[in-house]
Amino acid sequence: MSGNSFGKLFTVTTFGESHGIAIGGVVDGCPPGLEITEEDLQVDLDRRKPGTSRYTTARREDDEVQILSGVFEGKTTGTSIGLLIKNKDQRSQDYGNIKDRFRPGHADYTYDQKYGSRDYRGGGRSSARETAIRVAAGGIAKKYLKEVHGIEVLGYLSQLGPVTVDKVDHSVTNTNPFFCPDESKLDALDEYMRDLKKSGDSIGAKVSVVAKNVPVGLGEPVFDRLDAEIAHAMMGINAVKGVEIGDGFDVINQKGSEHRDTLTPEGFSSNHAGGVLGGISTGQDIEVHMALKPTSSISVPGKTINKDNEEIDIVTKGRHDPCVGIRAVPIAEAMLALVLMDHLLRHRAQNTGVLSTTKPIAGQA
Amino acid sequence: MSGNSFGKLFTVTTFGESHGIAIGGVVDGCPPGLEITEEDLQVDLDRRKPGTSRYTTARREDDEVQILSGVFEGKTTGTSIGLLIKNKDQRSQDYGNIKDRFRPGHADYTYDQKYGSRDYRGGGRSSARETAIRVAAGGIAKKYLKEVHGIEVLGYLSQLGPVTVDKVDHSVTNTNPFFCPDESKLDALDEYMRDLKKSGDSIGAKVSVVAKNVPVGLGEPVFDRLDAEIAHAMMGINAVKGVEIGDGFDVINQKGSEHRDTLTPEGFSSNHAGGVLGGISTGQDIEVHMALKPTSSISVPGKTINKDNEEIDIVTKGRHDPCVGIRAVPIAEAMLALVLMDHLLRHRAQNTGVLSTTKPIAGQA
Amino acid sequence: MSGNSFGKLFTVTTFGESHGIAIGGVVDGCPPGLEITEEDLQVDLDRRKPGTSRYTTARREDDEVQILSGVFEGKTTGTSIGLLIKNKDQRSQDYGNIKDRFRPGHADYTYDQKYGSRDYRGGGRSSARETAIRVAAGGIAKKYLKEVHGIEVLGYLSQLGPVTVDKVDHSVTNTNPFFCPDESKLDALDEYMRDLKKSGDSIGAKVSVVAKNVPVGLGEPVFDRLDAEIAHAMMGINAVKGVEIGDGFDVINQKGSEHRDTLTPEGFSSNHAGGVLGGISTGQDIEVHMALKPTSSISVPGKTINKDNEEIDIVTKGRHDPCVGIRAVPIAEAMLALVLMDHLLRHRAQNTGVLSTTKPIAGQA
Amino acid sequence: MSGNSFGKLFTVTTFGESHGIAIGGVVDGCPPGLEITEEDLQVDLDRRKPGTSRYTTARREDDEVQILSGVFEGKTTGTSIGLLIKNKDQRSQDYGNIKDRFRPGHADYTYDQKYGSRDYRGGGRSSARETAIRVAAGGIAKKYLKEVHGIEVLGYLSQLGPVTVDKVDHSVTNTNPFFCPDESKLDALDEYMRDLKKSGDSIGAKVSVVAKNVPVGLGEPVFDRLDAEIAHAMMGINAVKGVEIGDGFDVINQKGSEHRDTLTPEGFSSNHAGGVLGGISTGQDIEVHMALKPTSSISVPGKTINKDNEEIDIVTKGRHDPCVGIRAVPIAEAMLALVLMDHLLRHRAQNTGVLSTTKPIAGQA
Repeated sequence: MSGNSFGKLFTVTTFGESHGIAIGGVVDGCPPGLEITEEDLQVDLDRRKPGTSRYTTARREDDEVQILSGVFEGKTTGTSIGLLIKNKDQRSQDYGNIKDRFRPGHADYTYDQKYGSRDYRGGGRSSARETAIRVAAGGIAKKYLKEVHGIEVLGYLSQLGPVTVDKVDHSVTNTNPFFCPDESKLDALDEYMRDLKKSGDSIGAKVSVVAKNVPVGLGEPVFDRLDAEIAHAMMGINAVKGVEIGDGFDVINQKGSEHRDTLTPEGFSSNHAGGVLGGISTGQDIEVHMALKPTSSISVPGKTINKDNEEIDIVTKGRHDPCVGIRAVPIAEAMLALVLMDHLLRHRAQNTGVLSTTKPIAGQA
Repeated sequence: MSGNSFGKLFTVTTFGESHGIAIGGVVDGCPPGLEITEEDLQVDLDRRKPGTSRYTTARREDDEVQILSGVFEGKTTGTSIGLLIKNKDQRSQDYGNIKDRFRPGHADYTYDQKYGSRDYRGGGRSSARETAIRVAAGGIAKKYLKEVHGIEVLGYLSQLGPVTVDKVDHSVTNTNPFFCPDESKLDALDEYMRDLKKSGDSIGAKVSVVAKNVPVGLGEPVFDRLDAEIAHAMMGINAVKGVEIGDGFDVINQKGSEHRDTLTPEGFSSNHAGGVLGGISTGQDIEVHMALKPTSSISVPGKTINKDNEEIDIVTKGRHDPCVGIRAVPIAEAMLALVLMDHLLRHRAQNTGVLSTTKPIAGQA
Repeated sequence: MSGNSFGKLFTVTTFGESHGIAIGGVVDGCPPGLEITEEDLQVDLDRRKPGTSRYTTARREDDEVQILSGVFEGKTTGTSIGLLIKNKDQRSQDYGNIKDRFRPGHADYTYDQKYGSRDYRGGGRSSARETAIRVAAGGIAKKYLKEVHGIEVLGYLSQLGPVTVDKVDHSVTNTNPFFCPDESKLDALDEYMRDLKKSGDSIGAKVSVVAKNVPVGLGEPVFDRLDAEIAHAMMGINAVKGVEIGDGFDVINQKGSEHRDTLTPEGFSSNHAGGVLGGISTGQDIEVHMALKPTSSISVPGKTINKDNEEIDIVTKGRHDPCVGIRAVPIAEAMLALVLMDHLLRHRAQNTGVLSTTKPIAGQA
Repeated sequence: MSGNSFGKLFTVTTFGESHGIAIGGVVDGCPPGLEITEEDLQVDLDRRKPGTSRYTTARREDDEVQILSGVFEGKTTGTSIGLLIKNKDQRSQDYGNIKDRFRPGHADYTYDQKYGSRDYRGGGRSSARETAIRVAAGGIAKKYLKEVHGIEVLGYLSQLGPVTVDKVDHSVTNTNPFFCPDESKLDALDEYMRDLKKSGDSIGAKVSVVAKNVPVGLGEPVFDRLDAEIAHAMMGINAVKGVEIGDGFDVINQKGSEHRDTLTPEGFSSNHAGGVLGGISTGQDIEVHMALKPTSSISVPGKTINKDNEEIDIVTKGRHDPCVGIRAVPIAEAMLALVLMDHLLRHRAQNTGVLSTTKPIAGQA
């Protein structure tokens, strides 16, 4: 497979299938001296974990992460950090019936064609369950970014089907099961999701992430631009079909005189660029948006083929999110944190000095 | 900088500034036995090169590429391929006046902050001139994909400001300076651009690329998914602010029952997915769209700051494209070809067999 | 740290400290369809594991490896393979006294200086315990090499202090605790080690590995030559201070007419080159030798400094191998197997055909 | 091929064949602000270049390097540095007769088998001519190491056939064509080489490199140890068959009490380790030794096979070094400098502080 690692200097490598023994990963490249506990990582894992509301899958997983190495007496040592989450609620028998058939919109067909066979239980490696480790690894990055540079990474739901978010109040995001930052839309979301669930169908969503207090200078042109790596990270999240930085697709019909962000002695006067120019962070907020397709596993009957290439009827049983976009919020935050962390280290490698935002870690030279 | 390489097995490394002696690069990982000449690469370089129409920059460059190594008696040897394009029309004096000031919307400010100084002549390394080498390298990939697997990569302009393309006829694309595949829109484009040029302003655009005859199975989950690497490649093109695969941002308001592409014994019945499921190619057309911001270098006067953080007036002289999106078409093709080539080699590494679409290269076991 | 991965296409990433909860790793890039069980990997783990003879450390570890993912119904799926070995016999209190002092010849001082602190229990990450995961990962590579290409990787002790091996009989190697392939030297080794143990001192050793039936063509010039990557792999084993390919240091006083291996219609007539020419395998046996320094942890009293840079006396307690070279034999085999596996995949990526030695894996195209 | 890059953060990618148009390369990851000129790089290129004495090949190349990018107004900008050396004296007709035959001891056979064909002129890519670019790239690293950290990298010939060097006086090394640091051995070397040349044969050699003033802490365990990467670098030099760090193969018969380097409040009291413990630099001199095989291209007649697998006689014409070891001295220095530079950057990435040996570069934060 050889595609299970992300990052050049702050590297996350993951393993594990939806219904295997465990999922896990290795974080390599974390600087020494960072105070980190399993509880620190659990916060975001709990935000992502299934079974927390009636609008996400009914599968119940504690998603308790264990730190197996790389932390000694409460601090990172600079060595690789092993992470493990045991799988518990593996109702694999639900999946026996999809063994020989390919669910439309799923990775069943492509995995089968690529590898000659697949672990079909719960989607195996293609399941979003794998992203729990990304969230844990992202938690380490988030803590470092916050402690050493004061950087904050904040995600939220910006659209769900026809329901758009008009106002972003980050203090609202985590008070509701939709990660919606606009209190006035909670009732509409609730109603929409209730109807949707009844119908057995699913819906797409738009998720946004913003990073605040990012120092100017992160990103390595020309191929490893900050925005290019963000696009890689976000499009690598299950179900994502589009990624935007700043104004995104709106730029198609913008004039240059309208789009360019004026620099003033007090800073930029607007942020159409979304915090990146020439692939390098400008010091403004990094603004990222992404589109997530509706879940493919729905109970609306459909047609598909089986391994013998025969047409068959299909209704996906099992427990699925009617809108995968919702739980993608902490995943998107984690991925943005991983990109920023990696580029922070890469930037640091090139310069003899210390970034102006850096705060000392105890025990560091 | 350390971000000047792209690809894991078919790797392109580039160097060179807009107004330096030359731009160049190294292609590493090309299989031996491929017939390739400088003329093969020149075709796309000529499509991208400046000075070909009144709607692109007036800078004149022959963009003649030299193959310095890796090809012997007309065929690749399996060793690294050196590419060189000498710069000719370097009117650097045009740029003396931007030495100490930061053009709004440009990489001037971020390069200066990141590196402490910059080659300001023509934007230096941040100039789109660098992409000529990507086009040359992509030409090698394109030829291999075509010869060995019958894969074709076709780009086109799909929107320019308010002018949208309604019909995609690939035989039309290269007959006009806009890379527009819809003959009925050529007059509208011409008129729009004429007015735009008069105003001294610039405009955004949407560019699309499609890859045909891609075998099922390319892409390495979970982080190096085919779509994730395509997003990386496209967002790494100068001025790109958004990338979509298949239905892209339209999925936000799609239902699962509507989005999923039904498999039938005769193949998929639709292609909302854009040819990728679970990060792996489905065998359908790969469909990619991207949004390009309007050129920042415009002659509409504006405000900015200089190195001493003082507010100043700015009018960008020099010769610039009023719509960078147009010339991005061959660049987008090249980048998609590079991604597909890399994943073809990565896929091949994992399997003991040979892809069904493979045609033998003379002299290959 | 960011140095915990090995291999480009067949990648092993490890984590874990000597006295932590567990050690583990991820194998990424294993082709699908390979039959593999925990028992397959246990064979070599048992060869390496401590406590098996009076000449190795008295620490007792079952070293039972668990495969957590990537294998389904007995076969690899092509996804990443998680490996875990829980630590059991962690007598960490033995190590309290080295917390603030640096054992001479150990990594104590360098880890402390590099990272600002260290997990001092049993050497933490610098302990050879970490190599157990390399052995497990190497076991997967070994099985693939054997099944698909008939390649065998065979290590042995070739010298221990003054006792040299005169005859290499691979059928003898695994019949004795020294991995000595020369039956006539077993008594001498036994006697030498008994005396050594009494003295509380340790001794160096020479270990050799040979790979048989390697196809011609593996290795990627110019920097990733097969021999260069072998040297990297071997010098990366704890305590190794020298690596030779073929005649090694003997070539210094060889003439060209003497060294060159003549090609005949029946094959090479000698193997001074050790199976590699120009960084590419010749099809002959790959022959590698390495020198391992004597264990630093000895009970012979010595002087050193503590964290306050004061001179102190030191006697290392704990349970250590008097000759680390012995248990390095399965590690060296594993590392050579990993290099060959990686280069096999890299070679395969570059060619449209199939290596002549390839045997089909069931279920593979 | 995909093996033409070296280094993770300070990366060198090379291209070019012995008798092609040019050789060249790209240095990526050089920090901005370093003053560098072509003359700086020419010093070592002149030391390596052919035709400088009667004991090296008679081929005449000026080896004049051009810096094509990445340097502006005399200083590195942080962007990728393009390097080019045009080939001049390409007497390719000398090589027509080896087109269809495989010189024993050469890469002819392995390249042909691996790639299906080869650029046979002068050995093509397998020629040591390629190393000129390594020397140029190493020159950049050397300058940075010296200016910013006061690190010096010094190579020398330590043995040539039976002639051993007894005394290392670095001020002598560059005063003679053998890079011999022992004045008392110059006559013996001269005599030995004169006789050797008459015989038409060639001889092996031992080359050593030492790095002085290396800060403690460089190296990334467990796989990217400093010594492992040095071994990779050195074994990747043409003709090298063995690499040692510190005492190297002498450790086989050393006792632990004898080998371990005692730490005292004033520093280490010996350097058996060669400046590396646990894969991390100790702050002592890094000491590396390597064995180089005798040139395979000799005029002593021999037997070999042709492409039709028929036995034939062979006498290599062309112009070759009777001892390739001699000219390897500047190459070995360059490779050690590249490894140290890469690890300096990698170390810097992991820490929030600045190495104690760092001196500021003008214009750097």
